[in-house]
Amino acid sequence: MTTLKELAKLLNISVSTVSKALNDSHEISEQTKKRVNELAAKLNYKPNRIAQQLKTNKTKTIGVILPTVTNPFFAEVLHGIETAATKHDYDILVCLSDELLSKEKRSLELLSNGSVDGFIIAVARESQVRSEFKHFARVLENRIPILLFDRVIQDIECDKVIVNDFQSVYEATKFLIEKEERSNILLISNIEELSVGKLRIKGYNKVIEEHGLQSNVLKLGNVENVEEEVFRYLNDHPKIDAVISIDHITGIVAINMAKKLGRLVPEDLSVIGFGYDKTPMLSSPRISIIHQKAFDIGQQSMKTLLDSFKSEDHQFMTLVIPSELKLEESTVN
Amino acid sequence: MTTLKELAKLLNISVSTVSKALNDSHEISEQTKKRVNELAAKLNYKPNRIAQQLKTNKTKTIGVILPTVTNPFFAEVLHGIETAATKHDYDILVCLSDELLSKEKRSLELLSNGSVDGFIIAVARESQVRSEFKHFARVLENRIPILLFDRVIQDIECDKVIVNDFQSVYEATKFLIEKEERSNILLISNIEELSVGKLRIKGYNKVIEEHGLQSNVLKLGNVENVEEEVFRYLNDHPKIDAVISIDHITGIVAINMAKKLGRLVPEDLSVIGFGYDKTPMLSSPRISIIHQKAFDIGQQSMKTLLDSFKSEDHQFMTLVIPSELKLEESTVN
Repeated sequence: MTTLKELAKLLNISVSTVSKALNDSHEISEQTKKRVNELAAKLNYKPNRIAQQLKTNKTKTIGVILPTVTNPFFAEVLHGIETAATKHDYDILVCLSDELLSKEKRSLELLSNGSVDGFIIAVARESQVRSEFKHFARVLENRIPILLFDRVIQDIECDKVIVNDFQSVYEATKFLIEKEERSNILLISNIEELSVGKLRIKGYNKVIEEHGLQSNVLKLGNVENVEEEVFRYLNDHPKIDAVISIDHITGIVAINMAKKLGRLVPEDLSVIGFGYDKTPMLSSPRISIIHQKAFDIGQQSMKTLLDSFKSEDHQFMTLVIPSELKLEESTVN
Repeated sequence: MTTLKELAKLLNISVSTVSKALNDSHEISEQTKKRVNELAAKLNYKPNRIAQQLKTNKTKTIGVILPTVTNPFFAEVLHGIETAATKHDYDILVCLSDELLSKEKRSLELLSNGSVDGFIIAVARESQVRSEFKHFARVLENRIPILLFDRVIQDIECDKVIVNDFQSVYEATKFLIEKEERSNILLISNIEELSVGKLRIKGYNKVIEEHGLQSNVLKLGNVENVEEEVFRYLNDHPKIDAVISIDHITGIVAINMAKKLGRLVPEDLSVIGFGYDKTPMLSSPRISIIHQKAFDIGQQSMKTLLDSFKSEDHQFMTLVIPSELKLEESTVN
C-alpha cells in the first residue's frame, strides 16, 4: 500500500505538505494540492485508517454480536442495525456466538481490542441458561459501551432495547379468549428457556389464570421433528380450539398439521404466531401474527448507542419497541 | 487491561521472565511459572492479540462480506462458514454490502487494513449488474486471498465455490416434463439479473427448447406485491400446469395462489422451488425443492480458503456443490 512518505518522496516535498494537501489545507497552493491528489489517486493511496483512529481515538465502527442469523428475527434486526449505521456513516463488524458462551466471550475479546467504539449484542442462549455474564461486565469496566437488545440481562447496567414480550402475548391470548371465543388454548414454544420465552409464557399464563382456564404449554426445546410433535399433540388433544406460537415457525406448522388432521383453520382452530413482514405470505391461510418490528429494533438500537456516545453523563435507558397484533386469515375476527 | 510490564513489576521479576513463564519455557522454574500464571489469571491478563499478530503476521481471522442475511440462503451459508472457522480455530468478521457496490468497497477497505488473512465473499447485486469488480482485483494485487461463492465473477482469478445452477434447473424442468408429464411450465424469478439467476433461466430454456415447448418466464425483480403478481399471472394463464421457482419464496407463493384459484397442487399444478432444510416445513402441501446445500457451501468455502494458505504455489480452483432435487408433496411423483 502507498504511504504518505512514498508520496512525499516521489513528489519531492515534505510529508507534512502531502498530508496538508490531502486535507485541503489553505496553507497549500492549489497547484500542489492538484499534484498530490493526482498522484495519490494514481497510486491508489488510502489514508491509513489505523493512523486516523489513533488521532481521533474513534474507530467509527460498532461490533455486533448475534447468537445466529439463521433465525430471521436476528437477520432482520441486523438489517436495521446496518441501515442505521450507514445513515450515520458508521461501519459494523458482525460476529456470531452460535448461541455458545465460549464464542460470545471470544468475539467480545476479538473486537474489544480497539476495533470498535461500542457493542450491540443479543445474549447467547448458553450464557442466559448458565447466567454467566462476567464477560460483559468486564467490557463495560473498560468503558466500552454495550447496548443489549431482545435477550437482555437484568443485572447488567447498560442501554437496552426490548420488545413487550409479556404484554404482546397477554393481549394476543386475551384476543383469542374474548374475540375468538376460544377456551382451550395451546401455547407452543421452542424458546422456553430464554428470557423472552419465559416472559411470553408468563403473559399467556396470566390471562389463562384471570379467565380460570386450563394452561396447555407444549415445550419443544430444540427438537428436530417439530412437525411430528405438533401433529401428535393436536391429535391427542382434540379439544384444543386455538394455538398461540411464541416463535416464527411452529405457528405455521400448527396450521399445516391441523389441516392434516382435517381441522379447519380458522373455523375449528384459531392460530396466532410470531413473525415479521414476510411471515404471513408463507402460510396458507395467511397466519395472524404478533408482529415483531425487527427492523425498527435494529435501527433504534444503533441510534440509542450512537446517542450515548454524545453525552457526557449518559443515563442508561430501556427502550420498549411494542409488537403489534396483525390479523390475517388464521383467525376468525 | 493488564500488561506484561505490570505483571513483572508486581512480581518483582523481569518482563522477559514473565513472558517466558506464560509461554511455559523450560528456562523458568515451576514455582515462578505458578506465581506468574496465578497473578495473570487473577488480574485477567490477556496476551495482546495485536502484538501476537505482529509477530506471526497472521490474524487468524477471515473477513466475510455478504449481500444480506435476510435471504436465508446466505444466513445458512454463514452458519457453515462460522462452523468451519471455529473448527479450525479461526474467527470471522462479517460485513454486509446490502447489495450495494459502495458498501462492498467500504467493507473491503475496512477489513483489508491488516484485520484479516483472507476474504470469503458473495458479490453484491449492484456490482454484478454494473460489472464493477476493480475493488476485488486491488485486494488480490495486495496478496490478500479472496474466495468467491455463489455469485462469482468470471474474470477474477481466485478460488470459487458455486452450485450447479444451470444443471439443477435443467434437471428439475426435465423432471416436470418427463415424469410429471407437464407441458406448460412457468418459471418464476425474482433474481433474473444475477449471475445465478441467468444460469437457472438458461437451464430452464435449454430443456424447454429441446422438447419444443413454449418458454414462460415471469420476472418479478424486486416487486413488493409478489402475491398479486403471481395470482394475476396464474389467473390469466389457466393452461399453466407446472411452476418452477428459482428462489426460496415464490414457489410457496405459487402454491398458495393456486389454491386461491381453486387449483389443486399437485394434481392440477406441479410446483418445484428452491430451498434448504426447513423450507418444505413451511408450506402445505410441503414444497418439492431444489435443495441448495447452503451449510456445505459455507463449510467448503472456509476449508478451501484455509487450505490455500498452506500451499506455496496454490492453483485456483472452482468447486461445484451440487444441489439435489428433493421431492415432497407439491409434485405427483
